[in-house]
Amino acid sequence: MQPIFCDGRFVASAATEGFTAINPATGEPLPETYPVSPRAELGTLAAAGKRAAVALRGIEPARLGEFLERCATEIEGSADAIAACAARETGLALRPRLREVEMARTLHQLRQAAASARDRSWATPVVDAANNLRADSCALGGAVLVIGPSNFPLAFNGVCGGDFASAIAAGNPVIAKAHPGHPGTTRLLMECVERALQKCPALPRAMVQMFYQCTPQDGLWLVGQREVAAVGFTGSRASGLKIKEAADRAGKPAYVEMSSVNPVFVLPAGLETKSAKVAEDFAASVLLAAGQMCTSPGLVIVQASPAAETLVADVAARLRAATPGVLLGAGGPTQLEGAVATLCGAGARVVVGGKRVAGAGCRFENTLLRATGEQFLAAPDALQTEAFGSAALFVVARDGDEMLAIAEALHGSLTGSVYSDDRGDDEELYRRLAPILCERVGRLLNDKMPTGVTVSPAMNHGGPFPATGHPGFTGVGFPAAIRRFSKLICFDHVRPGRMCQTHSSWSDPRSLS
Amino acid sequence: MQPIFCDGRFVASAATEGFTAINPATGEPLPETYPVSPRAELGTLAAAGKRAAVALRGIEPARLGEFLERCATEIEGSADAIAACAARETGLALRPRLREVEMARTLHQLRQAAASARDRSWATPVVDAANNLRADSCALGGAVLVIGPSNFPLAFNGVCGGDFASAIAAGNPVIAKAHPGHPGTTRLLMECVERALQKCPALPRAMVQMFYQCTPQDGLWLVGQREVAAVGFTGSRASGLKIKEAADRAGKPAYVEMSSVNPVFVLPAGLETKSAKVAEDFAASVLLAAGQMCTSPGLVIVQASPAAETLVADVAARLRAATPGVLLGAGGPTQLEGAVATLCGAGARVVVGGKRVAGAGCRFENTLLRATGEQFLAAPDALQTEAFGSAALFVVARDGDEMLAIAEALHGSLTGSVYSDDRGDDEELYRRLAPILCERVGRLLNDKMPTGVTVSPAMNHGGPFPATGHPGFTGVGFPAAIRRFSKLICFDHVRPGRMCQTHSSWSDPRSLS
Repeated sequence: MQPIFCDGRFVASAATEGFTAINPATGEPLPETYPVSPRAELGTLAAAGKRAAVALRGIEPARLGEFLERCATEIEGSADAIAACAARETGLALRPRLREVEMARTLHQLRQAAASARDRSWATPVVDAANNLRADSCALGGAVLVIGPSNFPLAFNGVCGGDFASAIAAGNPVIAKAHPGHPGTTRLLMECVERALQKCPALPRAMVQMFYQCTPQDGLWLVGQREVAAVGFTGSRASGLKIKEAADRAGKPAYVEMSSVNPVFVLPAGLETKSAKVAEDFAASVLLAAGQMCTSPGLVIVQASPAAETLVADVAARLRAATPGVLLGAGGPTQLEGAVATLCGAGARVVVGGKRVAGAGCRFENTLLRATGEQFLAAPDALQTEAFGSAALFVVARDGDEMLAIAEALHGSLTGSVYSDDRGDDEELYRRLAPILCERVGRLLNDKMPTGVTVSPAMNHGGPFPATGHPGFTGVGFPAAIRRFSKLICFDHVRPGRMCQTHSSWSDPRSLS
Repeated sequence: MQPIFCDGRFVASAATEGFTAINPATGEPLPETYPVSPRAELGTLAAAGKRAAVALRGIEPARLGEFLERCATEIEGSADAIAACAARETGLALRPRLREVEMARTLHQLRQAAASARDRSWATPVVDAANNLRADSCALGGAVLVIGPSNFPLAFNGVCGGDFASAIAAGNPVIAKAHPGHPGTTRLLMECVERALQKCPALPRAMVQMFYQCTPQDGLWLVGQREVAAVGFTGSRASGLKIKEAADRAGKPAYVEMSSVNPVFVLPAGLETKSAKVAEDFAASVLLAAGQMCTSPGLVIVQASPAAETLVADVAARLRAATPGVLLGAGGPTQLEGAVATLCGAGARVVVGGKRVAGAGCRFENTLLRATGEQFLAAPDALQTEAFGSAALFVVARDGDEMLAIAEALHGSLTGSVYSDDRGDDEELYRRLAPILCERVGRLLNDKMPTGVTVSPAMNHGGPFPATGHPGFTGVGFPAAIRRFSKLICFDHVRPGRMCQTHSSWSDPRSLS
């Protein structure tokens, strides 16, 4: 049984139950056994996390930045082994996806968060000298529980992923829960963090802790513990809603990224002039990582026309020709089977695919479904069921007004894309559509598919419910993502000599401007 | 039966049930009857509010600013009548409290929000030109339900109070629920808004709507309706928790300001040197508005010493000498009776007061309770029961370490105050105490009582649960308070000519910096 990382070291778990991961490409179990931590063990992690939060009071921001940089350096030194393990556990391509793209992004995020931690750009202080008021932000005073998803074993891992970097940059300790799909990858990342911690003696031992699994009830119990100040979660809607409810009840912030169909509207003139480009872009986007991107395009809305039929036929041919990708785990095909059944039950019909691929690996046929606008408007909830994989629903609307009605019926999504022609023939419809989408999505794209989330201060990887739990926060991009794990504090007539004790940056004239 | 304001005009309610307010100074009912709106009527308001949100898409920010300014101008023109009505309905002093202080603050807030609406300083755009990404904020796409409290009939009224101004400034329509304690005041404010709306024909008719009362179940139903995008609430913890739960379940932001004991620590050397000043400051603060300020100091922590006994005796004498103020309504004395019973049940004992004042008016004796630090640490939850009125618990701790342990046991509060001596003898204890308080309060004060909330960009009127529902937001101070009622949106490769259509400020070079 693999050890957990508790209060500064790898220690044997008290678990009586364990689990193994599988290689989803072959369906075969991997050799290591990982513990399902019992409740008391979670309590131990929480208590140590709280002690770490206390020890972090007044920490110099530079120490946090240094730690995040050291994490990046250590990971860089073990990049080959980490990426190889992730490929084995997730079925994602080793190159370029894991070893080049996701690894580079992970290191970039850690270093950007380190820079923000150092300059405290996330804290946005405001000074009202006349009234002797100073607003600033500070750490939450407890541990942040980070629960990473299956689909980004590096960049969103509970250890060293985006939420981890954000929580640390704001001065919080982290309790990471590994995703059970890639426990070995998480263990390797934790070993990097252990080495980084050894080089940062100013930080508390329980700065980062890690466990692999627990029962759902024990996980919700941990969310409710006073020592846990906030939660970062990326994963399924079913789990996200339960975690959000537990955190809401306890009155603490939970940043849950849950699900998104990422609608793509192809406006009529754009459909006439760009059909081939749309088909190519769409197929590349929906096939990327076997469709298991948070921003994979799952819903395409077009207006009925010969060009629409050409597009559907073109996309169908591309999906049929592509080899189904390996899904992240055994749950993938089952989830897709259920989603296709729900969509078909609400009136959609399968154009291509729709079935599990026989054999031991975790695969599902590349799938295209279609429905009419009328059908969509009659069952808008069911027809927005997320099919997490290379599967999408094309909705063929009667006219522009029906496309707008469909937009008004959309739930919150991470993204919304609009393809339109370049001569201006779609502008009137665009002008009516864009504001509807702005209310419903976190990111509005023109002539582009939504996969590809640049780590930029101007990014918003977020969106209205049920994409996330709050429309005002982004999970990607610094310094904004860091703000999620901080609280506001106003210093009212606090004596000048005392400001530096709690907020060292106040002595830095840049933050007083 | 008084009319509600629905979709642009005062209309008769479909209510079959009504209520009357009372004059709390005399206990006598006031003549007007106000409707308890049935569920269908709330649905009508929600539908009209959603239509208004649609009509507001692409509104010029200047139109929102103009409207808020006109609201202020109209209120200024009717200030005497409004303040007189508020005094009659709440028992708060007409002068200076209502007519001068709260009226000025209300006008100031509306005008500050107007300025922020015009310059869109609340939206904090971020541009990444290299990646063609532009992050901005926008309205929520539905109505904001604003539920005002009893204790600020003007400055926090659902009509023209702080949350109203914030929600409008971000471009949202408002559905205001009057507090049943001051329906006439709310009606007068709504008449001002009606006149302002008539002068702003660019705004939708249902920009602001108002109803007086509904059943708790119907209110929670309204919170869950899709047309309602967010909720602003100030009031009791019991109601706030229910509203937060309904909003959380529906996945929409609820900004609930619920309760706060606002701890005041008097450090040992400060107690020796400033006892008289602390007693004077404390008595003035806890007696202000009959103790019914959100930031009223309800918990004072001192170290056992002769000076502590002097302070308690001094405070007791001041509270005994002061005439009990008029509470906001008949619920006030009952709530205080319950709170005193809970506190005493957990070990506190009454030093002064503790009982309802006989007679028809709504009054409760000025009340001082005391407990030991040991008692507090044995029952920290019960001994943080909010007694909303001129009532406070003094906790006499054994030593500095026990004071720190008490601080660690505190729930979230809006404020935390520390009095200490000027020679530096309390600095070591201060250095240990301040970071604990920073995690638990929204505003840290030195040598000052917490009542008095300056409307400043550097203010934080917020705090960790259960003071509010999220530690990252302030309800007072612009532009920050406006951000609560907005969502993030990122424009990804959106064509340049299209930016102004949805976000007119993009054409303003100031917001591109």
